[in-house]
Amino acid sequence: MKPFPLNAWYAAAYDVEVKAALLGRTICGQKIVMFRRKDASVAALEDACWHRLLPLSKGRLRDDQITCGYHGLVFDGEGRCTHMPSQETLNPSACVRAFPVVEKHRFVWVWPGDPALADPAKIPDLHWNDDPAWAGDGKLITVKCDYRLVLDNLMDLTHETYVHGSSIGQLAVAEAPFVATHGNRTATVTRWMEDIDPPPFWAGQLKHATGYEGRVDRWQIIRFEAPCTIAIDVGVAPAGSGAPPKDGRPGDRSKGVNGFVLNTITPETNKTCHYFWAFARNYCLGEQRLTHELREGVSSIFREDELILEAQQQAIDERPGYSFYNLNIDAGSMWARRLIDNMVRAETPAHERPGAIPLRAA
Amino acid sequence: MKPFPLNAWYAAAYDVEVKAALLGRTICGQKIVMFRRKDASVAALEDACWHRLLPLSKGRLRDDQITCGYHGLVFDGEGRCTHMPSQETLNPSACVRAFPVVEKHRFVWVWPGDPALADPAKIPDLHWNDDPAWAGDGKLITVKCDYRLVLDNLMDLTHETYVHGSSIGQLAVAEAPFVATHGNRTATVTRWMEDIDPPPFWAGQLKHATGYEGRVDRWQIIRFEAPCTIAIDVGVAPAGSGAPPKDGRPGDRSKGVNGFVLNTITPETNKTCHYFWAFARNYCLGEQRLTHELREGVSSIFREDELILEAQQQAIDERPGYSFYNLNIDAGSMWARRLIDNMVRAETPAHERPGAIPLRAA
Amino acid sequence: MKPFPLNAWYAAAYDVEVKAALLGRTICGQKIVMFRRKDASVAALEDACWHRLLPLSKGRLRDDQITCGYHGLVFDGEGRCTHMPSQETLNPSACVRAFPVVEKHRFVWVWPGDPALADPAKIPDLHWNDDPAWAGDGKLITVKCDYRLVLDNLMDLTHETYVHGSSIGQLAVAEAPFVATHGNRTATVTRWMEDIDPPPFWAGQLKHATGYEGRVDRWQIIRFEAPCTIAIDVGVAPAGSGAPPKDGRPGDRSKGVNGFVLNTITPETNKTCHYFWAFARNYCLGEQRLTHELREGVSSIFREDELILEAQQQAIDERPGYSFYNLNIDAGSMWARRLIDNMVRAETPAHERPGAIPLRAA
Repeated sequence: MKPFPLNAWYAAAYDVEVKAALLGRTICGQKIVMFRRKDASVAALEDACWHRLLPLSKGRLRDDQITCGYHGLVFDGEGRCTHMPSQETLNPSACVRAFPVVEKHRFVWVWPGDPALADPAKIPDLHWNDDPAWAGDGKLITVKCDYRLVLDNLMDLTHETYVHGSSIGQLAVAEAPFVATHGNRTATVTRWMEDIDPPPFWAGQLKHATGYEGRVDRWQIIRFEAPCTIAIDVGVAPAGSGAPPKDGRPGDRSKGVNGFVLNTITPETNKTCHYFWAFARNYCLGEQRLTHELREGVSSIFREDELILEAQQQAIDERPGYSFYNLNIDAGSMWARRLIDNMVRAETPAHERPGAIPLRAA
Repeated sequence: MKPFPLNAWYAAAYDVEVKAALLGRTICGQKIVMFRRKDASVAALEDACWHRLLPLSKGRLRDDQITCGYHGLVFDGEGRCTHMPSQETLNPSACVRAFPVVEKHRFVWVWPGDPALADPAKIPDLHWNDDPAWAGDGKLITVKCDYRLVLDNLMDLTHETYVHGSSIGQLAVAEAPFVATHGNRTATVTRWMEDIDPPPFWAGQLKHATGYEGRVDRWQIIRFEAPCTIAIDVGVAPAGSGAPPKDGRPGDRSKGVNGFVLNTITPETNKTCHYFWAFARNYCLGEQRLTHELREGVSSIFREDELILEAQQQAIDERPGYSFYNLNIDAGSMWARRLIDNMVRAETPAHERPGAIPLRAA
Repeated sequence: MKPFPLNAWYAAAYDVEVKAALLGRTICGQKIVMFRRKDASVAALEDACWHRLLPLSKGRLRDDQITCGYHGLVFDGEGRCTHMPSQETLNPSACVRAFPVVEKHRFVWVWPGDPALADPAKIPDLHWNDDPAWAGDGKLITVKCDYRLVLDNLMDLTHETYVHGSSIGQLAVAEAPFVATHGNRTATVTRWMEDIDPPPFWAGQLKHATGYEGRVDRWQIIRFEAPCTIAIDVGVAPAGSGAPPKDGRPGDRSKGVNGFVLNTITPETNKTCHYFWAFARNYCLGEQRLTHELREGVSSIFREDELILEAQQQAIDERPGYSFYNLNIDAGSMWARRLIDNMVRAETPAHERPGAIPLRAA
C-alpha cells in the first residue's frame, strides 16, 4: 500500500511563500507549481508542460497565466491551454492538472486526490496559528525521511529526554505515565508530570512570564489528526495551583504558561517530507523579541530530531522488509499509523488491499 | 530499441584536442582512448586493458603504443598486444578493439559499429568549419540529456522566442510559417520571416558588416543529417533586397549577412551527450575580435538551452513510458527521429524490431 | 556466492582506535559499534537499536553500557537490553547481536559469522606489528573497491614497475621469474632478483642502515593467509653476500635490510574495503624519524594503488559478468581467490553451491 492517502489536504506552503510568482514544490510525489492571482486567490497546477514536460515553474507568469519557458504554450490557473505557437487551433486535450487549493490557518492547503472529495471542512485544526489570543511563528524544513517517522517522533515525547536533554528533556518525561485514546480521525496521548522540577526551557518561560520559580505541574497533550497533523498542548503551572484536570473537569491553568507546538508534515516523496511547524504561546503576546527567540530555539531542537530521523531512515533503507518491535510508549504512534492505513485502504481498490485493520481500543 | 545507431560516424573530438597524448572519452556508451601518432594519424582504441580492465588512458604513450598503467601490457594503435610482463609468449587473443577514425571538417570522427561498413563518404557535411570562405569557431559542451532532445531543440526554433528572448528570439520566429521536407537521410525545415524588425543579435551583425539599419528579411534553414548533425543556415538581408528564393530560384543574399550554426551531437551515454557546435560567418572574415565575441555570445545562448534540456530530461526520467504530444512546430524533429529510428531498425535483428515506420511526407 | 566468508576474523580497528567511546564501523556489510570496557576488554555489537534501528553509535556510553540516543533503551556489552523507558517488564527478545572480539597484533579482530566457530587460534599472523625485534607503523585507508582487487594487487608485484616507478618499482620486478606455492589456507609467491641495481627506495634504506652502496640481491616473498591477510617479506642485501636460500637452506641476510609489509583488508561492503597496513623493519629500530618517514612514504605509494584500484572497480561495474583473462603473473592471486571461494563454499548451503573447485597446484 502507498505510504500516504491522496484524498487529504496537505500543507503545500506557508501563505506568505505564495506570491505573484511561480513556486514549484513536490507534494505527495506530485510536482506542483503555485502562484497567487491578482484577486489574491492561489492556483496550483501540475508542474510540467503538456507539450514537452518542461516544469512550468521555469516559465513566466503574466496576467494570472503561465507561459512555458520552452515553446511558449500558455496555461491559465485552471490548467487550460490558452495559446500554442504557430497554430490557430488548440488541441482540445491540451491542459495540465489543476489541484483544489484552500488557504487556512496561515497555510496553503492542496488536495492531491479526487477533486470531487475536496471538502474544506476537512482541513486540520491549527487555528492557534492565526488566533489573536496566541502569538508565535514557525518554519518549514525538509527532512530526508518518510513523513511517518516524524509522526512517530511527535506521538511519543519520551525521546525529549535523550534527544533534547539540554532544553526540554528530563527524566520525568520518560517515566511519567500517559494515556492514549483515539477517534476515527484523531489519536491523543496525554501525559501529566506533577510536582516536578521544570526543565531549563520551561523554567525560563514561567519565570519570564509570571516571575514564579519552583516546582511545577507539567503537561503534554499530543493530538494527531490524520493523516499528518499534530498539535501539542504543552506547558507548566506552579505545582499544586490546580492545572491538572480533576474529576472530568478541566484544571485551572491561569497561573501557568501554555504553548502549542503545531506540526503538519507533508510527504514530498516516499522518503522525504516537508515539515511545517510553528510554536504559539498564550503569554507575553506583544514581545516580538520572545517570538524571535522561541522560533530560533525551537528550530535548534527540531534540528536535533532531524539528525535522528535521517539516521533512522538510512537504517530502515538498509533493512528492507524489517518489522519494528513496539514498546508501551509507541501506543500513540501505532494509532496514528492505523488511522493513516485506514485512509489509504479506503482509496485502494478492493483487490489490492491487505486484510482489514479493526479500529478498537488498544 | 537502442536510442542511437552504431553504424554511423560520430564526432569524438575537435581535431586540436587529439595530440601525442592519451585522451579518454565515452562515445555511444563505449569508452574510447584516442591519441595522435607520429605520422599525424589518429588511433582510437577501446579504453580498457585486455588483462584487468584498467582504462588504457591511465597508461603511457611511447612510440605510438600504449603501456598499461597497471601491469605494463603494451598495445599498438591497431589494438594488438605487443608485450606482456614476465612471459615470452603472448596470448593470441590479447587485443583491444580498434575503431575506424577519420579527420574531417576539424573533427575527429569515430565509427562505433561494424568496421566493414565505415565509409568515409558518409561523414556528415560540416564543411563551413574549415572552408576559407567562412570564419568562425566553436566549443564542446557535455549536456546531461538524451542527444535527441538537443536535436528536437534545434529542429524547431520557436523556442528562441522563449529561451533566447534577449538575443536571437523574437515573436516572429514563433509565428512565421515554415516548410518541412525530408529525404532518406536528411530533414529540412525552412522559415522565412519577411519585412520584420531584426532581433538584437542580427541588427548588430548587419549594421557592423554593412552599415544597414532597418527592417529585414530573415531566414532559418535547418538541415538535419541522420543521425545527429544539424547545420542551420541563418541570416538577414535588408527587407526587399531580394534574399528570399522566388519561383524556385535562389534569392540574392549579397546585401545581407549569413551564418551557419554547425551542430553535431554525439551520444555519450543514453542520457548524456557531447555537443560540438561552431558558428561560421561569411562576413568580416579577418576580424578575430568578432570571432571571439561570436563564440562567447553563442556559448551564452547555448547555456540557456542546456538548462532547459537538463530540466526536460529530469522530467522525462520521472515519468517512465510517457508519450509526448506533438504540435505543428514539431514536424522537423518528428522526421529527424524517424530517420534515426530507421537507422537503428536496420541494425536491429529482425525478431527484436517493432513494427516498420513508413517514410512518407507528414 | 558471497564475495567473502563470514566465518573468519576480520580486522575491525587498530587497537588504539577503540577507547571508552562509541566507534561505529561497517564490517562485511554489518554495521558494528565498538567500545572499550573499564576492564580494557572490547565489546562489539550490532549498530542498530532493537526498537527503532537508530545506530547505537549515536547514543551514549556509561558504565560499559550504551544508552540509545532516541528513546533511552540501554544495552550491555553482550547486547542484552537492561532498561526500557516507561515500562518495568523488559521484552525478553530485546537484544542486539554481539560479536566475538579478540585483540592481537595491535588490531581488534571481529568474527561476523557463527560465534561457536570463533577460534582465536585462527587469527592471521601479523606478529611483526608488535614484536620488539621489529619497528614500524601503519594506517587505515578505505578503498572504494572489492577487497579482492587489493589482494590481486598485492599477490603480484609486477605492478610496482608501472604504478610505483618513482619509488620501489623497477623493470627487474616485472621480468624476474617467481615461484607460486599454496597450502590449505595460504598461498605464497617468491621472487628473487639477484645482482641488480636497487630501486631508489631500497638504495636509500640500505645505505642508511649499513653504509653500503652498489648492486644488490632483492627479494619479495608474498604470503597470503585466507581470507584477506598478506604479509610481504621484502628487502635487499649486498649482491653476492649470500642472502638467497641455497639447496633448501635459508640464506644469510645479515648484511642486508629486511622489512615486512603487513596488509589485512576487511570488506566493508561488496564494493568497498577497509585496508589496514603497516610497514615493519628490522633495522635502525630506535629511529622515530625513520618510522615517521617510512609510514608517510609507504602511504604515498599506497595512494598510487588506490587510484588504480578504484578505476578498475569502476571499469568492472560497467561490465557486469565480465570474466578476466589471466597471465602467468596472476598465479598467486588465482590461488588466493580459490582459497577464499572454498571458504565461502564451506558456509554456503549445498544446494546454493556452484561446482566444486579442486585444490591442486597450477
